[in-house]
This record gives sequence, structure tokens and C-alpha cells, in this order.
Amino acid sequence: MNTSNRIKNVEFSPIRKLIPYEEEALKNGKTIYHLNIGQPDLKTPKEFFESIQEFNEDILTYAHSRGRSGLIDEMIKFYKKHFNVTYEYEDILITTGGSEAILFILLSMFDEGDEILVSEPYYANYNNFFDVLNIKVNAFAADPKTGFHLPNKDVIISKISSKTKAIMLTNPGNPTGVVYTQEEMKLIGEIAREYGLYIISDEVYKVFSYGENRAISFGEIEGIEDNVVLIESISKIYSACGARVGAVISKNKNLMNEIYKLCQARLSVSTLDMVGAEGLYKKLSDDYFEKNKIEYEKRRDIVYKGISKIPGIEVTKPEGAFYVMVTLPIDNAEDFCIWLLTDFHLNNETIMLSPAEGFYANKELGRNKIRISYCIEADKLEKSIKILELGLKEYLSK
Amino acid sequence: MNTSNRIKNVEFSPIRKLIPYEEEALKNGKTIYHLNIGQPDLKTPKEFFESIQEFNEDILTYAHSRGRSGLIDEMIKFYKKHFNVTYEYEDILITTGGSEAILFILLSMFDEGDEILVSEPYYANYNNFFDVLNIKVNAFAADPKTGFHLPNKDVIISKISSKTKAIMLTNPGNPTGVVYTQEEMKLIGEIAREYGLYIISDEVYKVFSYGENRAISFGEIEGIEDNVVLIESISKIYSACGARVGAVISKNKNLMNEIYKLCQARLSVSTLDMVGAEGLYKKLSDDYFEKNKIEYEKRRDIVYKGISKIPGIEVTKPEGAFYVMVTLPIDNAEDFCIWLLTDFHLNNETIMLSPAEGFYANKELGRNKIRISYCIEADKLEKSIKILELGLKEYLSK
Repeated sequence: MNTSNRIKNVEFSPIRKLIPYEEEALKNGKTIYHLNIGQPDLKTPKEFFESIQEFNEDILTYAHSRGRSGLIDEMIKFYKKHFNVTYEYEDILITTGGSEAILFILLSMFDEGDEILVSEPYYANYNNFFDVLNIKVNAFAADPKTGFHLPNKDVIISKISSKTKAIMLTNPGNPTGVVYTQEEMKLIGEIAREYGLYIISDEVYKVFSYGENRAISFGEIEGIEDNVVLIESISKIYSACGARVGAVISKNKNLMNEIYKLCQARLSVSTLDMVGAEGLYKKLSDDYFEKNKIEYEKRRDIVYKGISKIPGIEVTKPEGAFYVMVTLPIDNAEDFCIWLLTDFHLNNETIMLSPAEGFYANKELGRNKIRISYCIEADKLEKSIKILELGLKEYLSK
Repeated sequence: MNTSNRIKNVEFSPIRKLIPYEEEALKNGKTIYHLNIGQPDLKTPKEFFESIQEFNEDILTYAHSRGRSGLIDEMIKFYKKHFNVTYEYEDILITTGGSEAILFILLSMFDEGDEILVSEPYYANYNNFFDVLNIKVNAFAADPKTGFHLPNKDVIISKISSKTKAIMLTNPGNPTGVVYTQEEMKLIGEIAREYGLYIISDEVYKVFSYGENRAISFGEIEGIEDNVVLIESISKIYSACGARVGAVISKNKNLMNEIYKLCQARLSVSTLDMVGAEGLYKKLSDDYFEKNKIEYEKRRDIVYKGISKIPGIEVTKPEGAFYVMVTLPIDNAEDFCIWLLTDFHLNNETIMLSPAEGFYANKELGRNKIRISYCIEADKLEKSIKILELGLKEYLSK
């Protein structure tokens, strides 16, 4: 019996290749600082667990396919408060994490062979969903020298065909840390209107933008309400990745009605995770985001400052999320990432990085790049940068 | 902007049509006994909630994409104990409910236009997944007079084409209550081997088979290990529908490797729901299933005995799950279901039923049938049957 062609299209995570080397390094007693993962290290707020403890229904029944109404209400308040956008009950469908939101949005917009427009580099995991649904990716390259901001309009529209259904962006960016300006977002809006495209905006890092760069939601841009659909998740903003709660948010009634069919098909989202999530939105004050933002911003500054001093490395200051893309003075960053695990250490410590190839449709563009995630404490980041610096020096002198 | 053709294929749940009438009846102060839903009314065991309370990690991180290993271990023990089948760690992938298991299995086996073989009537919700993935359904009819057991081999194989990839069965059956005999399962195995088909066996009601009819798992049938893939869920067996924990189980290493890609794509299943589920498997004794089975069997007997006495109704004794299919002496069962809500009551009480049309590919076959679910207490079932009897009498004399 054969498996489907569509599942054969899907590739295992590019980081998978590094895991045997990681395991070997750990077996040899090395300490590894993981700069490769986007799993926040901040504690999940106790309000999550407390809310679940207060749940006192006898039967854990299927929740409403739209999600618990209390949670939807809290999300509505959150968007009003943080982005001054007014959503209604029908504009929000709770999903099992941002992942299910992505899958349901794609199923509702794309037939096989349809095309999606993305700015590369982009979150590698999207490819799994594109590939299994036979959606063709049209990527325009964002320039590392601009901090991965958008290229000009001509470059973007040159990638649009009659089969293009949507443009998908992550803002703040993973893996880039870019935070789009209002002008860029208006440009995307203009293109979406002109070519009749949906804008799929993955905003799961929304509260993490630093300095002057407040991350704007695509929901704030006027005149494109029917084009925009947002991907929401509590994973990053509340350090609650293991709670599978996300949402699809859009004012496009027709689209939401179609996506609701899929919500009905899968019956419901985890009741207790939704109860916990509702507690987070309801009980935590704005201080919570502010405090975490300060912590991540501090780390961002450590990483950026440290890395930009390393000879031969090219980097621009990331503006949001907790990632930075780095161009190395070597041809194949993956080889270097493996070598750091197998052949290098500083006081028996080394680092694990993400080779950036997997974040590109045009693999060649990513071959000399890595993504660094700063989801570890400041002192470990300092050590990690030292390891990167000395490791690179030794690697280049081989 | 258009939505996809595939999402347009998907139809809203057939029960949806009845909801406005239900709401109207409730508004008018009628009590409604819900014989239309498969949501167990038994309490979720306290062990589920206790296990979650004992969870004491600070950060709710992404769980392993395969699921928590402790839960997988417990499922392995469960299958060894209840079915004497030996599974290994790699044979089980935990999913977000049985629904995600269905979706992932279908994506991994079927390309667009491929065909699936089912015995009709079948669980209506499957259609959502078939339709959105453009999988064509080939249904052979099970005869109500045999209690919806399988037809003979010739009938089954007449529906197989070169595009048929799998046969999908629910055992014990929803909506039929059928429990397949070992001979029937061997026949399916023989056909699967002969035509190179997967057997997708939805066994989420596995512990609910009554009298002499122990439900056999397809995993017990020898010689078809590579063909068989099971859909597992804790929803029904532990009255925990709101906890989204299921599994794909198969000894076919290639298939499981492909499905694992999708597990990685969606990152993880709810950590706390898995913790609760592990507690259920680990802490509950066999008495638990025995006690519930006795309760459901009692209800089955009440429903069957009561209904079979109603003049003009055809019914056979269901052998498992908590459903019974009933043939009514009227042309359009849906009209009758609506009429019960709008125009009938007994002491201001009425019943809500599932018209069976939605359970059929060949709608005509289901038009004069209903599905009754016995997920309410015995005394309410007695009243419900009285309402059905008197309602039917009045409806026929109109």
C-alpha cells in the first residue's frame, strides 16, 4: 500500500538532521545552549493553572466548536485594548493552537495548485502545511541589509499570478525579528485590494516589539477588513506552548463561515486549556507583558551587541519577536552548526543553532545564514555568543 | 476573494437544521430529551482532574510531537490487557482527539480523487474530512434487518476500484450499534490483502459491547498488521469529550513515519489533557469500564424493548456503542423530527432525534430512519420512548 503523494511532499524539520549530533554531544558530557528553539523559558503564569483548578464541572463535555464564549470575550477585550480594533463574537474562532488556525485558513482558501505569496525567509513550519495541501509557494526575498523589511512594490507584485490567493506574513517576524512599519502594511493592503488577495497575518509574537517599533496588527489597517485574517496563539505571549489555544480572527463573514465548518468537523478545542487561557487574558495586568518585553529586549540587546562585534558576521538589529538572523562568512552554515556540536567546545560548553536554509524557498539564499533564538537567560546568552565567536574563528582557520 | 472549492464541498452538520426548532421549543418552555447526541452523560472520573492538579512543571512547554511517553506507555498496557495485542512506542502517535487522528490518516493515504470504501450508514462527521480533502466515498449498504452487519464479499468488492485506497469502519458502530464478528473482520482482512487496501478502524467505543458480543479490535486479526490503522480516543470510554486526546495506532512503520510528519507540523497535543489521560489509564481499575458497560447495557435494553413494541417501527437489537438505528413507517424522518419539536409534547416534554439521512452516502436509504442515542438516564429514556410512541401515533393519524 502506498502513502499519498501529498504526504511524501512533506519534509521532516530541517533541525532534525542536527539531533543525532546533539545527542552525541550530550552523551559526551557537553553542555549545550539551545539557541535553536522558539520555546519561551519564562514561567507560565500561575493564573493559567489556578483557573483550571477552579473548573468544577462534573463532565468534561465537548466545548462549543467556536470555542468557549468567555475566552472569545476576553480576546475581544484584548484586541480593543492593545490595538483599538473592535471584533465581534462571530469574528473569532478558537483553534487548537496557531497550527490548527493555519491549517484551517489554508484549507478554506486554497485548492491544490493555488499559490501563496510569502516574504522569505519565513517560518519553516508553514511549508508542512503548504506541501501537504499542494499549495505552491511564491516567495519574494527580503533583504538582510534592511533588517528583512519588505522590498518595493514591483518586486512583490512580480510574484503574483492568477492563481495567487493570499499573501502570508509573520509580524513580528520569525525568523527575522522584523516589525513592519505602517507604510509597509498599507502597501500590502494596497496590493491585496488591487489583486483580490487575502492577507494571512501570523501575529503570535504581537506583544514583543522593542524600542520605538510598536507592532501594528493588520486589523488596524483600514479598508482591508475583508482581506485580513489573523492567526492568534497564547503560546508565545503567555509562555504556554503546551496549552493548545489559538484563534482565527477575521471580519470576513463568508470566510469565517467556511472555516467554522472545519471547527465543527473537529468538534472542539481542549476545554481545560481554554479555561486556563481565559484566566490569563482576564487576570493578568498589562505589567505582565511589559515585564516580559523588558526581559526579551535586554536579551535582544545582548545578542545584537555581541554578535555585531564578531568579525565577518553580518546582522541587523531585530525589532521584535525573539529571533535574529545572522549571515556568516562561510558557505555552508549547516556544516558549521554540526561542527559546533561535534568538534568544538569552550569549557565543555557549546551551542545549538538553526541553519537558515529551511526558512527559505530559495535554499541558496539561506545557506550562509543561521537563526538565533534568545529564549535563554542573559548570562547564558553572553556565554553562547563567546562560543559562537571563538567557534567561528577556529572554524575559519581550519 | 473566493474561498476554496474544497471548503465549499463541506456541508454543515445535518442536525444544524433542527437547532432553530429546538431553540423555539425551549423558548416555549418545553423540556427536551436529547436523544440526538453522542456526548456521554456519565461523570468524567476524578482521576483525570487529580492528575492535572499533580502536574507541577513551571513552564508549559511544547510536548513531544509523538505525545507524552507516559501516556503512550499506558495505551500500550491497555491494548495488551484488553485485546492481548502488543504495540511498541513507535506504533502510537497521540493526537488531538480522534478527529485529528482521522484527518492525519486521510492526509497520509489519500490524494485528491482517491476513493474510500465505507459501510453505510456511517458516522456523518467523516464526510467533512472526505469532502475537504476531495476523497470520493464508495459506500456499500449494510442491511438494517441484519443489525447492519456486513453484506457478503461480492457486494463489498463490487465497490472497489483502482483508486480505492482504504476501507473505513467504525466498530462498535456509530450510528448502527453493530459489533462485527471475527468472521466479518477476517473477511475485511482478506479483502484488504487481496486488493492492497488499508483498513481504517475507528474503535473509540471499543469497551462498549454488550451481552456475548465482545468487540474485537482489528489489531487482533493476524496477517493484516500492515493494513490496519486504528483511531483511538478517550472521549467516549472515559466520558472526557472535552479533553482532546486520541491516537493513531498502527504497526505499519512507513505509514506511521509519514503521519509523524503531520504531528511535527502541528507541534504538540495539549500537555495537560495528556497528563489527565495518562492518569485515567493508570489509575482506574477494570471495574470502571464494567460499571459503565452495565449502565449502558441497561439503557440499551430499555430502548430496544420499548421501541420494538411500537407499531410500525423496525429495529434490531444494537450490540455496542450507545446508538440504535430505527426505521419509521413514514417517508421523511426529518419532517417528523421537526414536528416533534414544533407541534408535539407530552406533559410539556418532547424529544430531539437525529434524522439518519446524514449518515448515508445514498441519502434515499436514510430518509425514513432516525438514530437514537442513549446518553441519558434510564427514567428519561422511558419517558422519551413514550413520547416517541405517542408522537408517532399522532403524526400518522394527521
